[in-house]
Amino acid sequence: MEKLHGLITAPLHEVEVERIAAVNSMVEVTYAMEEVRAELDITPESAIPLGRPMWQRELTRADASKALDSMLAHTEVMLSWRLPLNLLSRAPRLRWIQRFGAGVEMLSGAGGILDSDVIVTNASGIHATMVGEFVLCLMLMIAKKAPHFLGNQRTRFWEPFITSELDGKTVGIVGLGRIGREVARLARAFRMRVLAVRRSAPVREKGEVGVDELFPSAQLLQMISNCDFVVLTVPLTLETRGLIGEAELKSMKPAAYLINVARGPVINQDVLLKALKEGWIAGAALDVFETEPLPLESELWDLPNVIISPHSAGYREGHTRMVTDLFCENLRRFLAGKPLLNLIDKTKGY
Amino acid sequence: MEKLHGLITAPLHEVEVERIAAVNSMVEVTYAMEEVRAELDITPESAIPLGRPMWQRELTRADASKALDSMLAHTEVMLSWRLPLNLLSRAPRLRWIQRFGAGVEMLSGAGGILDSDVIVTNASGIHATMVGEFVLCLMLMIAKKAPHFLGNQRTRFWEPFITSELDGKTVGIVGLGRIGREVARLARAFRMRVLAVRRSAPVREKGEVGVDELFPSAQLLQMISNCDFVVLTVPLTLETRGLIGEAELKSMKPAAYLINVARGPVINQDVLLKALKEGWIAGAALDVFETEPLPLESELWDLPNVIISPHSAGYREGHTRMVTDLFCENLRRFLAGKPLLNLIDKTKGY
Repeated sequence: MEKLHGLITAPLHEVEVERIAAVNSMVEVTYAMEEVRAELDITPESAIPLGRPMWQRELTRADASKALDSMLAHTEVMLSWRLPLNLLSRAPRLRWIQRFGAGVEMLSGAGGILDSDVIVTNASGIHATMVGEFVLCLMLMIAKKAPHFLGNQRTRFWEPFITSELDGKTVGIVGLGRIGREVARLARAFRMRVLAVRRSAPVREKGEVGVDELFPSAQLLQMISNCDFVVLTVPLTLETRGLIGEAELKSMKPAAYLINVARGPVINQDVLLKALKEGWIAGAALDVFETEPLPLESELWDLPNVIISPHSAGYREGHTRMVTDLFCENLRRFLAGKPLLNLIDKTKGY
Repeated sequence: MEKLHGLITAPLHEVEVERIAAVNSMVEVTYAMEEVRAELDITPESAIPLGRPMWQRELTRADASKALDSMLAHTEVMLSWRLPLNLLSRAPRLRWIQRFGAGVEMLSGAGGILDSDVIVTNASGIHATMVGEFVLCLMLMIAKKAPHFLGNQRTRFWEPFITSELDGKTVGIVGLGRIGREVARLARAFRMRVLAVRRSAPVREKGEVGVDELFPSAQLLQMISNCDFVVLTVPLTLETRGLIGEAELKSMKPAAYLINVARGPVINQDVLLKALKEGWIAGAALDVFETEPLPLESELWDLPNVIISPHSAGYREGHTRMVTDLFCENLRRFLAGKPLLNLIDKTKGY
């Protein structure tokens, strides 16, 4: 019986690679070594301890690229973070890509994958708990003035302050996927009023499970104007690129805060900068940016009403273990010809 | 019909004083002006805008003290923050004190009030939502490494990091009053395992409403050793003074965090400092201290594993309005001879 060739270009622990190899003896697993993965411009994950550090490299960059080519030549399934350039021409036998993260916006830049028969699954849902907690952390830090009291601690300055509550405040969630629903669930535990925009909502309605009021996309501005916090949890697609611009920021209450844990390009960042400097809104907490890393010269770093985190909302201890669990399950399904979990609809882009 | 003489020495807004005066025409309300209140060493509240600033004082300190004496001479009910020295001898007609906050530990220093017939009520419950949110804010800030990423923002340093989740972690709540129960409720929304110690719990038991496991006071160490977070929400009493010392801190997991939103003296602060410097525990978030303001020379300010806030967990927008609501209701009950809300049991001290 012929082997199924699997390639892992996401950074996993050895025990996780072994678990994948053990799913079925038909599967032949190749784990791209660090030098090869480095070719894919893996940045955030290089912080994870994974074998030898970078300075112990044994391959030149050209050698790494060649090694990747020879791996891709017979790859049928792939567990990946960044995608290799010209993937389809380098991996002609490719049938399925399991993504390491939730976003799949990079597919449109990966040489025709959107128009091919290659199946794509993501790791959506694994992040929901983590990102949901992160959003609540940011809303609480804003309500409790955490940057203010941590700043006072640095200068040993004791100054009691009056904080506000989430209780009774209104949060508007833009994108009611798994992360959005988790934000809604937690926000309601804090007795917040929860509004949400969902692409598939046909009309404005009350009583949707988990939220107080659901708005169709066309009524985004109406929803925004009611909120103390606006939280972005949409995937980045052609429709959501630049979704938050001048009209949206001017619809927000001047006392309201914008929180982005989706993707940077969902916001028009130049307009946001203007809004923050001119007081159209009270502030923002941003985990994602148009360009990442956020350039050193960006004015966003220094604005007193902005909290910046480096695209880390969804990145947790045990992430690789959970993705491995998902990939093993999907691998079993793939071999059995059953429908895969977390299948991406390429026409929607999520 | 004789008037009931009420004295307000807590800082209220004018409209709130008017609401109290309007409860019943039998009540004659005196609102201590700022100079008089200053005699009571009101510190945290001086941040609230309340009429003229301090530099416009018209009374000398001796005059203010005399003015207070003449007010106290006929005071029967009192809404107060700090308590005047030698209160009972200065206010011989005093029958009831409504406290502005939750803690009543200062009663033992207020000249025999504990042994007198003077009724004391507090503002417990008003703080529960606020302090509960603050505790979740602190736990999330620790899990998400907020001091770390805010520090990186200051230096424009982009460094993705791995965070942890509250989901699945264990929190131990020491003192299951209203604040403790609110912490428990929110922690469970985050799918934490919730343990609690309650003075009145006779034996260790499972299934107590709102927590996963309840321990009697005698099993504090057993509970603590199971926790990722230990949260102090007990009142300060003779029993709880110095409750957290060497044995308790050494029982904690080295990866665990201590959070104090109760009162500073519940912890032996010298031992805590040692524990934080020597790594018995991972860190602490402290809103209260043995001496407040925390002295400039305290080593706590600079420890990298400590978050310091200036006794502000329970201090919110609208606090004076909510205390006014409570006092008006209690005033109606007092006049009608009905039982008061939030009555303090002086033998227990809360």
